[in-house]
Amino acid sequence: MCELLGMSANVPTDICFSFAGLMKRGGGTGPHRDGWGIAFYEGKGCRTFHDPHPSCQSEIAQLLRRYPIKSRTVISHIRRANRGQVSLENTHPFTRELWGRVWTFAHNGQLKGIKKRPVSYFQPVGTTDSEHAFCWMMEQIRMRYPDPPRRDAALTALVRDLAEEMGALGVFNLLLSDGRTLWCRCSTNLAWLTRRAPFGAAQLIDEDMTVDFAQETTPDDVVTVIATRPLTRNETWTVMEAGSMVAFRNGERVG
Amino acid sequence: MCELLGMSANVPTDICFSFAGLMKRGGGTGPHRDGWGIAFYEGKGCRTFHDPHPSCQSEIAQLLRRYPIKSRTVISHIRRANRGQVSLENTHPFTRELWGRVWTFAHNGQLKGIKKRPVSYFQPVGTTDSEHAFCWMMEQIRMRYPDPPRRDAALTALVRDLAEEMGALGVFNLLLSDGRTLWCRCSTNLAWLTRRAPFGAAQLIDEDMTVDFAQETTPDDVVTVIATRPLTRNETWTVMEAGSMVAFRNGERVG
Repeated sequence: MCELLGMSANVPTDICFSFAGLMKRGGGTGPHRDGWGIAFYEGKGCRTFHDPHPSCQSEIAQLLRRYPIKSRTVISHIRRANRGQVSLENTHPFTRELWGRVWTFAHNGQLKGIKKRPVSYFQPVGTTDSEHAFCWMMEQIRMRYPDPPRRDAALTALVRDLAEEMGALGVFNLLLSDGRTLWCRCSTNLAWLTRRAPFGAAQLIDEDMTVDFAQETTPDDVVTVIATRPLTRNETWTVMEAGSMVAFRNGERVG
Repeated sequence: MCELLGMSANVPTDICFSFAGLMKRGGGTGPHRDGWGIAFYEGKGCRTFHDPHPSCQSEIAQLLRRYPIKSRTVISHIRRANRGQVSLENTHPFTRELWGRVWTFAHNGQLKGIKKRPVSYFQPVGTTDSEHAFCWMMEQIRMRYPDPPRRDAALTALVRDLAEEMGALGVFNLLLSDGRTLWCRCSTNLAWLTRRAPFGAAQLIDEDMTVDFAQETTPDDVVTVIATRPLTRNETWTVMEAGSMVAFRNGERVG
């Protein structure tokens, strides 16, 4: 199984602490030796890093641990290959542009028969089920809304329906964002946590590392972290139910 | 003016040497203090790095100088902002997917009235003339060829026509690739050089650095480098004529 990590915050926030825990799972404490990737939104732009090599050895991963890129929306994925060759084009997160927004997608699971679904506007570059599912979802969104819907809730409802349809084909744990909203859909494993004032200390499960967020934040900060499994041992994570979806914007739950 | 750098090779080749020269121009020897970006194709995948900050100070640029990513097709750009805010989404190269291929675009120049041209399939994320021109070109290519044309020459002919149409709007020095072909269109400044056996030593103009390619290559390697201005002082560069375009594939000229 792959590890997913997402963040939604109301101020640009670095994800170094959570990423440190996730990286350990990339060949260190976890079995995810087949590549990793991360997407950081900065304004309307999106910066992605992909590495088909194990994250615990990756030089780029080390850079990111040291170099605190601050972002309000982050999606990351550590891969355990079960479909598709290990290669750059098969490494999540995947990105496409729609409505002048950069969309980012990371998934764990397998989807039976997904490749029979026709895609035209958006076509996979690699050979994964996941990228095909992403292209199919983007195509449905574009067909339903050639222009962005006025109400964000309408978009969330559509994403929920599409995720449900994908979930019927297999395991579909999903992180998806258009740079504004972060949609998180749980098929088997996904948990989230919102940090806000008063901030305390958090201790990673996978590495001997503690951060006192009271030192790192201002009282108005709201930061939600989503991960396949809880990353810290002394905080209360909400473990999502199978088939459920949540949406976050600026760190707050909006759906 | 911005600096462009491209490479087309028949074997995965690192671009560290040329990049070292280009980086010096990013605030060092040149006036290009407004960000830089680079795209490396690896197989069908494409890895991009963008930094809105001056390249001569950038930590990511330093990483890339040390970390020899090997690629057969590279497009890089150092920006001097003249239109659009300095931000991640305005930093070249831009990418879009068409036909399951990642397309990459970098441009220097300004295009009068480009934003009046309608775009629908592909929409700009940022505010530059360049990204709008890219979206417009991609849309023309998609409309003319919903599926990829059988003959590469047909695609090259279309790119040439579109580049000419853009060139009528202003300065349009262009590097464009679909991961197979690298198209290079000169409006004011673009020069190229093909290195092949017997390889010799090359000396950078912008930095006191020499590489003996005989030590770095095998006799079958063919590597073409394209840059705004020649990067080395002891090799013979072909300085392109205004309005001309060349196409490279696997290091060899194909159009």
